Amino acid sequence: METYSVLRDLCIIIVFGKAFGILARKLRAPQVVGEIIAGLVIGPCVLGIVQQTDFLSVMAEIGVILLMFSAGLETSIQDLKRTGIIAFLIACAGVLVPLIGGTLLYEAFYGFSPWGSENFLKAMMIGCIMTATSVSITVRALQELGHLKGIVGTTIMSAAIIDDVIGIIVLTVVLGFKDPSANIGRTCLMTVLFFVLALVLGYAIFRIFKAFDEHYLHTRRVPILGLALCMFMAYVAEHYFGVADITGAYLAGIILSSIKDADYIAEKMDINSYMLFGPIFFASIGLKTDITGLTPAILIFCVCFVLVAMVTKIIGCGLMARVFHFHWNESLKIGIGMMTRGEVALIVAQKGLAVGLLDSTYFTAVILLIVCSSILTPVLLKLLYARYPDNTEHLEGRYSNEPAQQNT
Amino acid sequence: METYSVLRDLCIIIVFGKAFGILARKLRAPQVVGEIIAGLVIGPCVLGIVQQTDFLSVMAEIGVILLMFSAGLETSIQDLKRTGIIAFLIACAGVLVPLIGGTLLYEAFYGFSPWGSENFLKAMMIGCIMTATSVSITVRALQELGHLKGIVGTTIMSAAIIDDVIGIIVLTVVLGFKDPSANIGRTCLMTVLFFVLALVLGYAIFRIFKAFDEHYLHTRRVPILGLALCMFMAYVAEHYFGVADITGAYLAGIILSSIKDADYIAEKMDINSYMLFGPIFFASIGLKTDITGLTPAILIFCVCFVLVAMVTKIIGCGLMARVFHFHWNESLKIGIGMMTRGEVALIVAQKGLAVGLLDSTYFTAVILLIVCSSILTPVLLKLLYARYPDNTEHLEGRYSNEPAQQNT
Repeated sequence: METYSVLRDLCIIIVFGKAFGILARKLRAPQVVGEIIAGLVIGPCVLGIVQQTDFLSVMAEIGVILLMFSAGLETSIQDLKRTGIIAFLIACAGVLVPLIGGTLLYEAFYGFSPWGSENFLKAMMIGCIMTATSVSITVRALQELGHLKGIVGTTIMSAAIIDDVIGIIVLTVVLGFKDPSANIGRTCLMTVLFFVLALVLGYAIFRIFKAFDEHYLHTRRVPILGLALCMFMAYVAEHYFGVADITGAYLAGIILSSIKDADYIAEKMDINSYMLFGPIFFASIGLKTDITGLTPAILIFCVCFVLVAMVTKIIGCGLMARVFHFHWNESLKIGIGMMTRGEVALIVAQKGLAVGLLDSTYFTAVILLIVCSSILTPVLLKLLYARYPDNTEHLEGRYSNEPAQQNT
Repeated sequence: METYSVLRDLCIIIVFGKAFGILARKLRAPQVVGEIIAGLVIGPCVLGIVQQTDFLSVMAEIGVILLMFSAGLETSIQDLKRTGIIAFLIACAGVLVPLIGGTLLYEAFYGFSPWGSENFLKAMMIGCIMTATSVSITVRALQELGHLKGIVGTTIMSAAIIDDVIGIIVLTVVLGFKDPSANIGRTCLMTVLFFVLALVLGYAIFRIFKAFDEHYLHTRRVPILGLALCMFMAYVAEHYFGVADITGAYLAGIILSSIKDADYIAEKMDINSYMLFGPIFFASIGLKTDITGLTPAILIFCVCFVLVAMVTKIIGCGLMARVFHFHWNESLKIGIGMMTRGEVALIVAQKGLAVGLLDSTYFTAVILLIVCSSILTPVLLKLLYARYPDNTEHLEGRYSNEPAQQNT
């Protein structure tokens, strides 16, 4: 492989990614949509000036791992505890309903298959893609509206974070089933073992990094060793437990999320991400998207996929919120707030592609889902908040032990 | 290629690189020495737990390109103009004497060869490695002594910057000769053409980025587009002009060195460098270092190489400084200040290895040179400044048109 042809590819990816990213933002869409479209444009679909290479694939995988590590770092264990059980149950409903909805959708289109068969796993993979809410897009939407810190906002945030974790566990289990040598029991056992190890080892590592807080705050060694931990956990997860490498990276992030330098590490990771690895990852999604196989039947599937993904999330989260005494309008806000999909859906889809449980044709559906949900959520939330301003006094006391902290 | 074995390699490189880097600093050696030793330790020489792969090679090459881009960004065109012709001539002498010294050394060991022959080019490659002073190590040494801004300090800095440029031009010419299809005239013509293009295109690009200063100061797009420019120049240099890609990256840095956001770009590049690409680059030097072929004869060559490289630099720079009315002790300070070698020597050596003009055995000599010069320079400068404090009144007026600015 000629090194300088890599330079050419990288230059094109960076320039197109940034240009389309800026364009997307001008059209009020998330920048990530622009970066994916850039990949579509420079890839085989349109211009064909960049080909997917081994090098780009590995870089994209590292990009995903860095993204998940960042997501883990930004997870606030404090917030998770504070919003507690309600957010957890909303997240569960928000994972379960789309998972079932996606699975049924696939089976409705391509026939029902018995539990555990290849086709059933493919159906579940479609469900898996629908599970994870995109935290970043949700945060941006709520920040713009100034409702990130209210009870509804905090619940959405916590539930979005928890549903990432549940979504990844579900993905891990589904991916584990794909391995022919593994049986269901062994997969579950290995997954549980990995999480137990991560908990024990994670606590030890957390104590070591915590000790760094005293002497090495804001020194280079903290983010560097953090990155090493991310690589280590990703490797151990995949190599020794058959758990997805992104799960390991995400847990590495959570382990370090409570040290003083967590933001500092996240900032350094973000720079690595947005400069090079992020654009490569998002562009490589576009590079992989295959529209030559896009028949009218698949197109209809795509449209149904988007509708099912959005509606099941609203129903799952909204109904569960209603059960816990949120008003109808608040429940709707929570449901719509949870509707956005983003990087994680792509990551799950890429994993599915890598293990052969997803055809690259369906990337179009995922991209369509991200574009639609990312544009619709901020618009709908804005309308809802304009029509029904925040009035959550009826929830105080019921919702949290520390109501005084809600508005900080 | 399994992605997760890449994660394992990266984790090992990061952890060992950082550990040995910290160890090196504790022993008052530059951190880069530790990172190289880390590569030696984990590579085939000692532990053999990481193998050089295609992926790591490309990452290392990108690492070099980022380093050279950073070096270009930190170049102050203002400083270059201010210290002017004297620093330029000192730099010329500081390139020419080691170049001749290195060439003669190789020929003394392995026999004289006619001009333009393969062996003559190999001899010149040894000379090339000796040419470039390491700006970063020089800066660090002078900063620690508090003499970075004096006349002697400024002259060393300017000369070190200029000798990088001259050294790279010499390298470019030598590498051009290696290409069998090229003749000397064509190589020189293409090199000149590239520099002319870089000047014209560079000015246009500079104006565009200058316009960004108004509206987009400290926005992400500036470093991202800067990185794209770096990749673009590196690619164009290598692909269309047969000029080394690092030359293109370095010029891209110089083009952007005068925009307001130059430091901002450099900061973002440094994060990319020190987190991942830098450690991979320095470790890959260690991974490539081959001591199995280290015979006593080569060992003697290594020792001579180090002595010649240090002495020729002191003689070349010191004598030229003396010609321009610096005192003997000041001339010696300049000569010793210019003696440090670092990344650039490794970069040149790696280029030589890539085109087959250098045997990997000689990396040992380069590493020895970096270690010796990096340790000796600060020590000798400290002794000299203690014995002969700065007294450069005799140079005022002679040395610069703007003496008032000298002590700012």
